Order: sequence, then C-alpha cells, then structure tokens
Amino acid sequence: MKQPQTPSIMDALQGDIGIEDSGYVAGIDIGGTNLRVALADNTGAVLAKWSSTTVGVSGADAVMVLIREGVELLLRQISAPHGALKAVAAGAPGITDVDAGIVIATSYLMGWRDVPLRAMLEDTLNAPAAVDNDVNLAAIGENWAGAAKGVRDFVFLAIGTGIGSGIVLNGCPFRGSNWAAGEIGYMLVPGVPDAPWNQGEPGALESMIGGEGIKAQWQSLWREDNAVLPKILNATEIFDLALAGDPSAKTILTQSARMLSHAIYNINLVLNCPLFVLGGGVGMHPGLCDATREALEQRHMRVRPHLTRSSLGPDAQLMGALRLALDTASSRPAFSAWGGAAKL
Amino acid sequence: MKQPQTPSIMDALQGDIGIEDSGYVAGIDIGGTNLRVALADNTGAVLAKWSSTTVGVSGADAVMVLIREGVELLLRQISAPHGALKAVAAGAPGITDVDAGIVIATSYLMGWRDVPLRAMLEDTLNAPAAVDNDVNLAAIGENWAGAAKGVRDFVFLAIGTGIGSGIVLNGCPFRGSNWAAGEIGYMLVPGVPDAPWNQGEPGALESMIGGEGIKAQWQSLWREDNAVLPKILNATEIFDLALAGDPSAKTILTQSARMLSHAIYNINLVLNCPLFVLGGGVGMHPGLCDATREALEQRHMRVRPHLTRSSLGPDAQLMGALRLALDTASSRPAFSAWGGAAKL
Repeated sequence: MKQPQTPSIMDALQGDIGIEDSGYVAGIDIGGTNLRVALADNTGAVLAKWSSTTVGVSGADAVMVLIREGVELLLRQISAPHGALKAVAAGAPGITDVDAGIVIATSYLMGWRDVPLRAMLEDTLNAPAAVDNDVNLAAIGENWAGAAKGVRDFVFLAIGTGIGSGIVLNGCPFRGSNWAAGEIGYMLVPGVPDAPWNQGEPGALESMIGGEGIKAQWQSLWREDNAVLPKILNATEIFDLALAGDPSAKTILTQSARMLSHAIYNINLVLNCPLFVLGGGVGMHPGLCDATREALEQRHMRVRPHLTRSSLGPDAQLMGALRLALDTASSRPAFSAWGGAAKL
Repeated sequence: MKQPQTPSIMDALQGDIGIEDSGYVAGIDIGGTNLRVALADNTGAVLAKWSSTTVGVSGADAVMVLIREGVELLLRQISAPHGALKAVAAGAPGITDVDAGIVIATSYLMGWRDVPLRAMLEDTLNAPAAVDNDVNLAAIGENWAGAAKGVRDFVFLAIGTGIGSGIVLNGCPFRGSNWAAGEIGYMLVPGVPDAPWNQGEPGALESMIGGEGIKAQWQSLWREDNAVLPKILNATEIFDLALAGDPSAKTILTQSARMLSHAIYNINLVLNCPLFVLGGGVGMHPGLCDATREALEQRHMRVRPHLTRSSLGPDAQLMGALRLALDTASSRPAFSAWGGAAKL
C-alpha cells in the first residue's frame, strides 16, 4: 500500500528540485499508521515527499526496509548523485534517548523496547543520523517554520490516537531526566478516571480525549432507537457534527475541551509558558481549539497563555526531522567523507 | 512580639561567631505569619538568627522597618564593624521578578502588588540586595545544603497555608516566562473543585490540602453528637490523629495524600523529574509523606521519582536566601565599596 506522492513543496521553504549538488538531508516520521519521508536541500527547502502505511508493519526491521525504499525512491526522483545524502533524522512515537540514539519505549500501539534506531538508520542509509521523539520533532518543526516560529518558550500538544507534548524552554527542547518530559496523555484532571493505570493501556487523559476516547464518548451517548447518525464515527467527524449543531456531539466537544483546558492549565501552572500549539489529527480541529480557548477564558489566570493551532499540520514532525537532519549534517561529517561506500 | 533567638548554627555549615571580618550576608524570609533573618559569614556559616511575627504587619514599609530592626540587632550581636554587611537577599511569598527586583503579586494573604522589594532593601540596609519567591529560595536552600544537595533536577513542594513549588532544572531555578512557574496550588486534579476559581481565593488544590483545606475537611467530618475531639484542629494535629488511628483523620490523610500524589504525578508527567522534596509546615508531616509515597506506588510509572521530606525544614527558605546573598556579594561590590556611607 505504498503511496508515492508528487513533491509537495512548502511555501515557507520552497526550492527548486535537484539544483543543489552540495547534498541533501532526509526527514523521517515513523507513525503508528504512516511512515513519511521528506527530502530537502541544504537550505531546508523540501524537494520531495513519500509516504507509506505502517499498519501491520510494527517491527523496527520491517520499518527500516520501508525507510530505505522511501529514501532511495526520493533520491532517484531528484537524480541525486552518489553520496548525496548528508544526514537523516527520524522521529519515533515513543520515549527516545536522543544521546544514545535509542527508542526506549513506544506507546501501546507499536510496542518497541530499546530499539537502537540511530544505528539502524546509519547502517541502512549510510549517513549520519539523529533520532528524537516524534512530538518533540513536531515542536522543533513548529519552532523552525510554524506557529511557534522563533518563540523561546512554548508547548506543542499533539492529540491524535494518543496524546503527548513537546516542550521548548529557552529555545531548546526540554526532554526531562529520563527523556520522558511532556508525557501528558496520562494527566489526571477532573473528569478522567483516576484509578491506577495499567501498563499497556492508554493514559487517563487520552482515554477520554484521544481519538479513541472521543469515539467511545460518542458510542456511549448513541442510542439505537434514536439513531439517525452512525454509531461508529471518528473524532473529527464528531467535532464536525458538534459545529453543525448535533446535541450529543456538542456535549462531547464541550466536555473534551474542558478536560483539555484543565490539562493546559495544569501544564501552565508548572511551566508558566506563553504559547500552546495544538496539533495532531484531533488537536487540529478548529472546533476543539475554539472550545478549549473558551474554557480557558472562564478561568482566572494572571497571564493567560495564547492557544493556537499548528500551522504545519501533519507536516510538523517531518519539518522537525528535516531541521534535526540539517543540524546533524552541519555538526557531523557525512559518512561518505569518512571513506565509507555509500550504499544508495 | 519579637522573639530574639540564640544563634542556631547548622551542623552542615557550622562556624564560629564573629571571627570573620571579611564581611557578612543576611538572608531574610518574609512569610505571611513570620519574618525571619539570619546572618552568615562569607563561607555561609550561620552566625545568628532573629524572627518576629508579621501578623498584622502586611505593608511593605512596615515589613522593612522590621527587617532593619532584625538586621541591626544581629549585626550588633556579633559586634560587626561598620560596613560589614556585604549583601542581603529576601524571599517573598509571591510571584517575584528576579531581574527587576519586584514582587509582582503575593498570595491572598498579604496582598502586595508590584513592590520594588530589592530597591527598598538596598535603601534600608545600604547593601546590594537580591529577591526571589520564597519557595524558589527554599528549593535553592535544599539544593545547597538540604535534601536535594547537589541534585540537578528536582521539585520542592511547599505545603503550608498555601501550596507552591520551586523547580530546579539543570541545576538552576526555573521561573517561567512571567516568573510564575510552579504555582501548583491551583492545580486541577481529580477530587478538587473544578469550578472556575476567583481571584483572591485559595487555589483548587490548596483549598483541599493546604492547611486551611485540611482543617475544613476535619470540620466537615466532625459531628457534635459524637465529639470526643475538638472541632478546631490544625493540619498537623489531624495528621497526628490519623497516625494514632482516628478513623476520620485517617480518611482525611488518605484523601489528601491521594490528591497530592495526583499533583506530583502530573508535575512529573510534564517535567520527568527524579526527586520531589516535601516542605512547609503541613508538607513536612511524616504521615503525609508516607501516605503520598504509598499512593504514588499504586500508579504505574516507567521511572518512579523519589519522594522525600525537606531536611532543612523551616530553615529551607532562610538558607536559600543566604545562598542568594552570598552569590550577590560575590557578583556585586558592596555599596560601601562604592563610597556610600553605611547606615548600619
């Protein structure tokens, strides 16, 4: 189920294809449902993108085969010369030791444990590699070219099937003592179940307002004898219905926004941060952002943080990966420069 | 109601009185109920301490009169020569702009707004001054000479009448974009009221597990027809009763520990911090620490932070103020060195 894409060049970083011969970088977004790869020149201009489903492909070796396929295809597409790949960076959906280049644990969706992703990428692509948590990369992307461009302190909240956040403090990603800062899908706010959570289950907050939680809220309100609308709808469809006036959907949107506003309020109590950016498939819905802002405005705050939506959307992580790849290319020599034979 | 104290010299920083003639620093803890001053030599050894009630003394000018009285008394007590005070630092119970030296807002207890505390101290004591939030200073104190000695990342939680936290990240106090990081007395966790809070009221978490909240919990469980124990007890008395087996007090301790564990859990989700230190009159109670640790242990966490009690106790803020005063003395010349006439 590969889905080769025509090059989608972003306005902010537009560039011509194939004119740079001083090298390229690849950014990789390893998601629970999709793998995405982008190729950029040494100015960060995106030249080409590729994506493939990862449904049924959860092992790291199988993901590596896909990554190789995508990167090779993109390099061929721009007629890149031998050894043109100067660096790659990948975001993984889990806690990632950036120094060691190891994905310590992914969420319950993929089940990775201690995967040496950086070494695997370097071996597969024969270029210097860097890895990070995908939401941290999305925050880096937004900070580089999106809704938080140039902002020194902000929190990027990714709400999709799971919920996580990428925290930028003083211009740098803040990762915590064990690389697990920002794991707010487990946050305990009024309205979420506060029974001890079991390993392998969604966290308390994401069980309510992650994609699956929203679906479950809808199903619990759905009544067969009164059914005009289907029982199975996804979160954005439910939020669309709320904006169209459906009472049950409005209740779900209001409840979800209230819990999300509690989480943002709590994070802000700890960090005192001026900007929160909502991203992810569910988090990008304008209805959720507006309702959450409304809920926050009902609460007294000495300095109210600004709440906005991601401007890069699904490209945020990929852009962060490209930025990290560019940083990697400039801080470490390409493998080919060390005499290694480029495999690509 | 001044309470001159005999010098209480701490083990960790013991020093002889009056032998240093290269100058002294003063640390000042401005609390809602007490003002405390400590004098130390240039190695940080505490030489003398003084305290006075601040009940009925809430204005900054009146507090300054008290501070002057305390510092003069302590300098006379050690027969300090003219111009011996090299620097002072004070902690205020509120949001403090450390750069500008201004207390932006204190809690509902004192009602300060935009008080230029640093300039007032410098004018009153004729020495370079520094100011910070009192809980940040307590964290600095614990980091310098207490339960978090030398730890690079930790959170100090002060639970007294109010609740606040001092966050140390990468060895430095983390203060947030508007000096309000760590204001966790307002945190929304399961069990606290989540109705919008009104300015001037205690925060949601402190309304439940701050000193007044614990007292109120006791009063709501107290029944006249079944009363062996008094209706009015303070938080530590209630926790003592819980440890002695009183069922109502045990319920309150368990509920309070559960809410506190939720708050610590949430802070840890954001910061991923290896150590939490409990301080403050209520927070120092061993029953609360043990019950909170137990509640945290019921919750799965990939890396469980360590929870301990302050080892400096009520001296934590004063020690932090002394440390800040020492840093100020070494980074800024004493006023007397600029030719100013020392008033003391």
